[in-house]
Amino acid sequence: MIEVELQILVRRNGTPFLTSSTVKLLREVQRCGSLRIAARGLKFSYQHAWELVNEINRVASEPVVLKQRGGVGGGGAQLSVHGRRLLSEFKNIESVTKTFTKQLNAEMNF
Amino acid sequence: MIEVELQILVRRNGTPFLTSSTVKLLREVQRCGSLRIAARGLKFSYQHAWELVNEINRVASEPVVLKQRGGVGGGGAQLSVHGRRLLSEFKNIESVTKTFTKQLNAEMNF
Repeated sequence: MIEVELQILVRRNGTPFLTSSTVKLLREVQRCGSLRIAARGLKFSYQHAWELVNEINRVASEPVVLKQRGGVGGGGAQLSVHGRRLLSEFKNIESVTKTFTKQLNAEMNF
Repeated sequence: MIEVELQILVRRNGTPFLTSSTVKLLREVQRCGSLRIAARGLKFSYQHAWELVNEINRVASEPVVLKQRGGVGGGGAQLSVHGRRLLSEFKNIESVTKTFTKQLNAEMNF
């Protein structure tokens, strides 16, 4: 069985910015309020998660994840208003892309 | 400026099969009739190109690239009828996905 998948990549000024994988991390951060717990839940190393978040914050027009270092559990983390808006828009993109992909697979003629 | 890109991944029975990158290689093979020259044109090592083609042939329901080993230039290679049909269908997918992506970017609200 042949199936087409469309992977979403959002760029800002040409630089890769958001993918399904980094958005998954952002959603986990939003859900549990901690980068360390979010990373663990996704089986990312804490350092890898930290680097992803730093890169997203660097590329974004304003911070996406607000971090608080130290304390029990490695400090808290939460999404900024801008971050929550990005997630909401990404969800819309996922939704219309899913519908389009379904239609594409139905019409495909491999 | 924020821009959404959709990357096409075609799977067969769940296994990654065709991407824009491997399709580029197949198109080059079709164009120049040689895996070695195609690989060189795309700055792939010959071994990498060879492995990609073997993997595509392994995953496909029937051979995609027909290889002829040896001879000057490392032997010729050409696409089978099945391979040409896959390329043609991939081109259709690229075309409708491009139109959809353009519309998505116009309607996006980041």
